Amino acid sequence: MSHDTSTTSEGALLVISAHAGDFVWRAGGAIALAAERGQRAKVLCLSFGERGESARAWRDGLRLDEIKELRRTEATNAAAALGAEIEFLDAGDYPLLETQELVDRVVRVYREVDPAVVLTHTLTDPYNGDHPAAARMALQARVLAQAVGYDAPGEPLGAPPVFFFEPHQPEQCDFKPNVLMDITSVFDKKRKAMECLAAQQHMWDYYTDLAKRRGVQLKRNAGPNLGLAHGTMGEAYVRLYPQTTDVLA
Amino acid sequence: MSHDTSTTSEGALLVISAHAGDFVWRAGGAIALAAERGQRAKVLCLSFGERGESARAWRDGLRLDEIKELRRTEATNAAAALGAEIEFLDAGDYPLLETQELVDRVVRVYREVDPAVVLTHTLTDPYNGDHPAAARMALQARVLAQAVGYDAPGEPLGAPPVFFFEPHQPEQCDFKPNVLMDITSVFDKKRKAMECLAAQQHMWDYYTDLAKRRGVQLKRNAGPNLGLAHGTMGEAYVRLYPQTTDVLA
Amino acid sequence: MSHDTSTTSEGALLVISAHAGDFVWRAGGAIALAAERGQRAKVLCLSFGERGESARAWRDGLRLDEIKELRRTEATNAAAALGAEIEFLDAGDYPLLETQELVDRVVRVYREVDPAVVLTHTLTDPYNGDHPAAARMALQARVLAQAVGYDAPGEPLGAPPVFFFEPHQPEQCDFKPNVLMDITSVFDKKRKAMECLAAQQHMWDYYTDLAKRRGVQLKRNAGPNLGLAHGTMGEAYVRLYPQTTDVLA
Amino acid sequence: MSHDTSTTSEGALLVISAHAGDFVWRAGGAIALAAERGQRAKVLCLSFGERGESARAWRDGLRLDEIKELRRTEATNAAAALGAEIEFLDAGDYPLLETQELVDRVVRVYREVDPAVVLTHTLTDPYNGDHPAAARMALQARVLAQAVGYDAPGEPLGAPPVFFFEPHQPEQCDFKPNVLMDITSVFDKKRKAMECLAAQQHMWDYYTDLAKRRGVQLKRNAGPNLGLAHGTMGEAYVRLYPQTTDVLA
Amino acid sequence: MSHDTSTTSEGALLVISAHAGDFVWRAGGAIALAAERGQRAKVLCLSFGERGESARAWRDGLRLDEIKELRRTEATNAAAALGAEIEFLDAGDYPLLETQELVDRVVRVYREVDPAVVLTHTLTDPYNGDHPAAARMALQARVLAQAVGYDAPGEPLGAPPVFFFEPHQPEQCDFKPNVLMDITSVFDKKRKAMECLAAQQHMWDYYTDLAKRRGVQLKRNAGPNLGLAHGTMGEAYVRLYPQTTDVLA
Amino acid sequence: MSHDTSTTSEGALLVISAHAGDFVWRAGGAIALAAERGQRAKVLCLSFGERGESARAWRDGLRLDEIKELRRTEATNAAAALGAEIEFLDAGDYPLLETQELVDRVVRVYREVDPAVVLTHTLTDPYNGDHPAAARMALQARVLAQAVGYDAPGEPLGAPPVFFFEPHQPEQCDFKPNVLMDITSVFDKKRKAMECLAAQQHMWDYYTDLAKRRGVQLKRNAGPNLGLAHGTMGEAYVRLYPQTTDVLA
Repeated sequence: MSHDTSTTSEGALLVISAHAGDFVWRAGGAIALAAERGQRAKVLCLSFGERGESARAWRDGLRLDEIKELRRTEATNAAAALGAEIEFLDAGDYPLLETQELVDRVVRVYREVDPAVVLTHTLTDPYNGDHPAAARMALQARVLAQAVGYDAPGEPLGAPPVFFFEPHQPEQCDFKPNVLMDITSVFDKKRKAMECLAAQQHMWDYYTDLAKRRGVQLKRNAGPNLGLAHGTMGEAYVRLYPQTTDVLA
Repeated sequence: MSHDTSTTSEGALLVISAHAGDFVWRAGGAIALAAERGQRAKVLCLSFGERGESARAWRDGLRLDEIKELRRTEATNAAAALGAEIEFLDAGDYPLLETQELVDRVVRVYREVDPAVVLTHTLTDPYNGDHPAAARMALQARVLAQAVGYDAPGEPLGAPPVFFFEPHQPEQCDFKPNVLMDITSVFDKKRKAMECLAAQQHMWDYYTDLAKRRGVQLKRNAGPNLGLAHGTMGEAYVRLYPQTTDVLA
Repeated sequence: MSHDTSTTSEGALLVISAHAGDFVWRAGGAIALAAERGQRAKVLCLSFGERGESARAWRDGLRLDEIKELRRTEATNAAAALGAEIEFLDAGDYPLLETQELVDRVVRVYREVDPAVVLTHTLTDPYNGDHPAAARMALQARVLAQAVGYDAPGEPLGAPPVFFFEPHQPEQCDFKPNVLMDITSVFDKKRKAMECLAAQQHMWDYYTDLAKRRGVQLKRNAGPNLGLAHGTMGEAYVRLYPQTTDVLA
Repeated sequence: MSHDTSTTSEGALLVISAHAGDFVWRAGGAIALAAERGQRAKVLCLSFGERGESARAWRDGLRLDEIKELRRTEATNAAAALGAEIEFLDAGDYPLLETQELVDRVVRVYREVDPAVVLTHTLTDPYNGDHPAAARMALQARVLAQAVGYDAPGEPLGAPPVFFFEPHQPEQCDFKPNVLMDITSVFDKKRKAMECLAAQQHMWDYYTDLAKRRGVQLKRNAGPNLGLAHGTMGEAYVRLYPQTTDVLA
Repeated sequence: MSHDTSTTSEGALLVISAHAGDFVWRAGGAIALAAERGQRAKVLCLSFGERGESARAWRDGLRLDEIKELRRTEATNAAAALGAEIEFLDAGDYPLLETQELVDRVVRVYREVDPAVVLTHTLTDPYNGDHPAAARMALQARVLAQAVGYDAPGEPLGAPPVFFFEPHQPEQCDFKPNVLMDITSVFDKKRKAMECLAAQQHMWDYYTDLAKRRGVQLKRNAGPNLGLAHGTMGEAYVRLYPQTTDVLA
Repeated sequence: MSHDTSTTSEGALLVISAHAGDFVWRAGGAIALAAERGQRAKVLCLSFGERGESARAWRDGLRLDEIKELRRTEATNAAAALGAEIEFLDAGDYPLLETQELVDRVVRVYREVDPAVVLTHTLTDPYNGDHPAAARMALQARVLAQAVGYDAPGEPLGAPPVFFFEPHQPEQCDFKPNVLMDITSVFDKKRKAMECLAAQQHMWDYYTDLAKRRGVQLKRNAGPNLGLAHGTMGEAYVRLYPQTTDVLA
């Protein structure tokens, strides 16, 4: 397996997600690995997922403000477990509305963080319209942030690569992974972060199983001679823009 | 730009092409870079391109055996200019017939070379049926070589990644590059290799222009802050299997 | 042919269309069959099609309010002929604007009707932007209605399957039918409903021919041994989400 | 969830696979369900998977004939555990060669079995060329068996629907499930059948996890109100031809 | 509507089909128009369709040689009605085998006819494997015929555009028309040619209805101001290679 | 090569672009050819590209109004060099917002110009969101302008064909050309128009190289016998709607 050891360790990882919990299930391994390498890792939650991803809290009779606070606390703990910063834009969910004002706020985050890598949702998800909405805003803001003429503080952004993290039903979202990431060494951190999301206990095992599954595929694609220990854990991604490199591996 | 510095420098690069000249136009940069890094680079030409890619020689009145010899010499010189070994299977072209005997010969090359990376044609090319035929055989042989039960000398193959190199009319071949490779440092070698193919002089400039074009795109995708010198030259590839990595970049 | 005899006869059929006439041409058979089985069938017209689908009325010099009334009457009659309820949201057409307020009204219909099945337009239609707009809102509202946290009366929606009905130029709309429905037994009702749309007489034969065409395909896909009477009439649909079943047929 | 209760219980289920074990991992639930309903279920293995799917036996030093016998015994036991007949054509694997003689043998099986439903591999699988080869032959033979003019015993075949079962790496095989099948009631049989394949113990848990995963998706697509017990197990399929039906569900 | 009045009136039209009747249903209008303009129109039938397309004759108890003769006569009459030459290669059908010898015979036809335009089947057809087989050979032979080094009489072929004609179930064959051809002026000839195929009477109306349907679409895409008479009849095609032109219309 | 000599010379060419310079690089040849044939050619720039396409001016310290004026002047000169009219809607860029008011202004241009052909951006461009936004509005406005009931001056529009012009990174924008246009005779005008855009000098050669590249492909697709002079220059387009014709060429 090719282990890129690029100089991106100096650049930041920016994760843009629709709801408060998405980054844990879908990108927890990548975040923990970045943090371990010393990269700044920042999670930007456009909403708390207070309406669409908090069924149990509603059934338990909590109020909207209580649910938001609950989700904030959980997500903050999970980010800490992974070694990441977290910021909430509280833009509302179900639906997460695409507004130019919200895009502008995301542009400002790009300019401030100056990420070397960006992670976000897929552009297709027939089960959850907030996910593609977040992705479209993440991509639009990235392009706007690149323009010297865009009126926001900071320097124009470079061209950080963008990776889509894995949706809940990947095939239905046309998610065909072209990157399989080895997260074995940090899986315990990802599990701990998952356990911060107390209301979604059934997901802990679901996403542990998924990590195993992606790990098996990783081994299959990396080849049997790579000395990957049994029990490899993985995360799957789709790279949006072409990889730029000077070695094929 | 991410510069993978994987341990693949110890593994070999295997290029499987239908005709004698394909590897020069389409993968000359990748070959020269591998050779410079100390990788073994081997080109396997299934045919000489004696019927389909030698129009001038036929018009000049050469005989079939003379044309084959001409193409062999040119390609051997071009491989040398790039620092690569070359082998010809002389399986005939226009059409390049898919036979189990030919696939078996390719399996044996895989087992002998034990490549860390494989380059071949795209699976679609409405302008030249030999190209997809070569690609199908290259892929089938790779899978066969992986099986311990396949009756051929050598150890079972690992799972070397496969990259499709660029066809003449990329869009018509559904070629959507997901890897842009920086070949600036070896472009002079690629140009020299191209000039070994004396009969196709109009292609020298065509593929020099293409390298510039892919270089411009490489800069655009790598970002303006990467310090890429003006005059970046590139080659485009499509990765078939998911990339396995432990860093997103 | 597999004749599903599911318990959905107890659930409702909800048809969400952009304009007043769409449900007749595209889903009249499915509606009549549902009604015959005793299902509640409800048609929701987001607009009357007063600007984009009423060319003759405009040429005849009618005013906007007259045209709306005309379309309302025709569509109401057609729904009655099929055995369906009908409701008009009068949201305007050409363009049918996607607003959160309109989506919210559709959510409330979902919560009230609690459909077992949903029919709507395709997501692609280069000839009529209102159709995809209606489909996007129908899909977004369905997901919102599922969330316990969404602020609207009624219980959270289940996961009713969604079928896209056939657009006017199916291939150009990337409409590849994966369901062919036998509407032979109710075709006379569909024809009567079509004849309620007096201004579009040329369409009566066009959609009768289409029903024959889909019927021929239905017979071809169901097999010659199924005892389908000559003169089978059909409607074509695309299922959006995976079918859930415990028998393959 | 729609539970089709069609009359197909009288027709046979025919599973056509490249190697001896494929039917267990990929379609064991569908087979067991058919058998329980009283359908004839027949598995046709084009080869034993003696070269490509028997790595451990080769490493253990068995001879080719011993390996074939081993795989025959295992697969026969697994079929029995599911309630299915099994037949081996011993056509050789890695590669499974597409010959007209082999297709003709498959035609004769179609004519004899007269299946109501056919299951086979996907047409794309970059990890195993035998799978698409088997699928191509299964599809070609089905069409040939339909022709009254084809010279083989028996009556012309009808038009049995075809379902592709799930490959090992579904996304890489462009496998987008459009049918999710509830196999909860027979999962114990599927597990027993898997355990007949002693050499592939690591697969038992892998495919148990997969059944859980498809079960979760089944519940999500069937809706929360369907009363599906916790612990739903599923299998995923892709339907090739349009479904023919008279009810949308 | 753009009426190309290119100099192709001097070049020939070559139609390559799998079975004896295909050219009538699918390309009869284009053939008749070419003949009327004075183009040479040549139909090449790779087989008579004696096994797969002659169900009635088999049921009537005819022998294989009688069926071939019947199909030859019918197709010859149909070609005459359209103003075309016809040639039969009698290569057998169901299956139509792809052999290098057959491809070579097609190359020789290309070299002899030197077509300005080529029509053939689509590359996908899940209902009939002979159709894609014919298309693959037609395309392969075209490329071989272009090579000066290919050993066959005549001059190397130019680059005649290729159009796929319409299959029986277009959506299932991924047939998305990008050319709609106005065949109104010759539809009576097409109808007469169809009526030469006496055994397939049910197809006469089916393909008359299809011509009407494509005619309606043609009018819709050409615009209302084009003065197209009511009753426009059409045929649909998919262009394989890019159109070359110096006017956009 | 087929040279359409349709009567469209009487109709107008309408080019709708997001920014002031797009029409020069992407469609300059088609515009100049139309003008030479005597067609009215009109360019509609939705914005000046003042923020996103004017990096040098911003770095040079110009104010927003100065930059707009600069871009206006350059684009006006370029249009004049091509023989086209130009109009600016000054709707703002980066982002170009999709508003119903802007769409309505475009409808009015359609009604006034009554174009025979429309050129615009592709619907996909991951590098620049303004381009797809412009395309979506151009397409929506075209459909609205066709409706007699749409409240804007002028007659309802016909159905002018739409062509997407080439984006900067075609493969990444899913741009698969199906029209290659010969612009050799007007390339000097296109070059002069490019040179009016003084700030983007590096683009002059880039797009000259691209014209050569498309010219080579044009020759390859038109065939060697067409007498195309060496040095053919080309532009690539994607036709959105089916071509309507009565000759295949």
